[in-house]
Amino acid sequence: MTIRVTAMKWAPPFAVGMVRDMRVRWILNEVGWPYEVTLVDAPTMKAKAYRKKHPFGQLPVLEEDGRPPMFESGAIVLDVAMRAGLCIAAEGTAERAEAIQWAIAALNSVEPTLFDVAEVEYFMKDETMKKARRPFVVATAKERLGELQAALGDRVWLVGGDFTVADLLMSSVLAIAARLNLLGDFPTLAAWQRKVFDRPAHRKAEADQVAQIGAHTQADMRLDDVK
Amino acid sequence: MTIRVTAMKWAPPFAVGMVRDMRVRWILNEVGWPYEVTLVDAPTMKAKAYRKKHPFGQLPVLEEDGRPPMFESGAIVLDVAMRAGLCIAAEGTAERAEAIQWAIAALNSVEPTLFDVAEVEYFMKDETMKKARRPFVVATAKERLGELQAALGDRVWLVGGDFTVADLLMSSVLAIAARLNLLGDFPTLAAWQRKVFDRPAHRKAEADQVAQIGAHTQADMRLDDVK
Repeated sequence: MTIRVTAMKWAPPFAVGMVRDMRVRWILNEVGWPYEVTLVDAPTMKAKAYRKKHPFGQLPVLEEDGRPPMFESGAIVLDVAMRAGLCIAAEGTAERAEAIQWAIAALNSVEPTLFDVAEVEYFMKDETMKKARRPFVVATAKERLGELQAALGDRVWLVGGDFTVADLLMSSVLAIAARLNLLGDFPTLAAWQRKVFDRPAHRKAEADQVAQIGAHTQADMRLDDVK
Repeated sequence: MTIRVTAMKWAPPFAVGMVRDMRVRWILNEVGWPYEVTLVDAPTMKAKAYRKKHPFGQLPVLEEDGRPPMFESGAIVLDVAMRAGLCIAAEGTAERAEAIQWAIAALNSVEPTLFDVAEVEYFMKDETMKKARRPFVVATAKERLGELQAALGDRVWLVGGDFTVADLLMSSVLAIAARLNLLGDFPTLAAWQRKVFDRPAHRKAEADQVAQIGAHTQADMRLDDVK
């Protein structure tokens, strides 16, 4: 069985090591499923043929012989873990419910508040708008991060006694906060995020993404074609 | 086994019928698990005792005898469906993967673009900021809705031949778009969303939420305590 993951050919410095194919590489490394990487550029992602695999023209896409292509990294992480029977408890258990709870909390309750800060820092051009909006989005993100830190307390893993997809997705989301310098007031969260990222499966995923992006330049992406 | 769901005692008109306990009421109605509703007000949600059940001080929380309380409505929908063996295909199948894919797409790729529009329309006070930000957030949301409509095509259900959690979550997210008047350019999406909402399990959930909120007033919420 061959598994292929689409990944970004090039990315701006703020995104290197954080492009969403990271989350899929990581879970595949955790469960020990070998995979190949297909590097794609921006025009390819926006083309009709690719949109049949990913309606939003983004990445990653997971392709496996005999199965339809799958998009949405958070979903791929959950599905691979369930099928492998690793990094998530068995169906029907309270631990399964808790892992899904924290996975969805990362994607629907934490990450959107960080997107709003990333938008101001990386994508907003108008300096007046940036200045007017920054205090609100930073305060909103920090409120959520404070709530998360209080809930995490001193536990080692979010669910039960071992690493799960909840840790994978929450630490990946917190890496955005770290890069945005939002974790200074949250030393427990920051230390937890770094510790989860130190797993060999993550370190290999990160090294592979950094190396593959480093082998290309912005010109390879024809970024002016990206909406 | 008694199941209890926390729900909002009162909500402003723009939110009535859309508060997140709707999604949990709906899936419980679909799988036929009876439940009781515990109405909560704003100070209760922000209090320490409630935060032990829901770290973000929001709702809903699902409580079942013998299991830890669960928060995050998207996660509750997925977990209840998996445990009931209804509204989602069996573990390991491609249909299970597809349902999770669309569920997460609703929560992580569609809903955040709608939150940004809702923020401008319902929460932003400064008229200059509203005017400056509206075109960008509306354009971003509409781009995503257009992509979604193209992917939906003329299918009746998002996955396979029957209703799944993917339809529940995507139609719930699209209801936000409908209320924000964003679906005018997307008649296929709009018709699909209304059709999914016409299921008896949804209609009962909506009628119950509307009635319970209608039995209270803003004074019952001490809204000035809500951050």
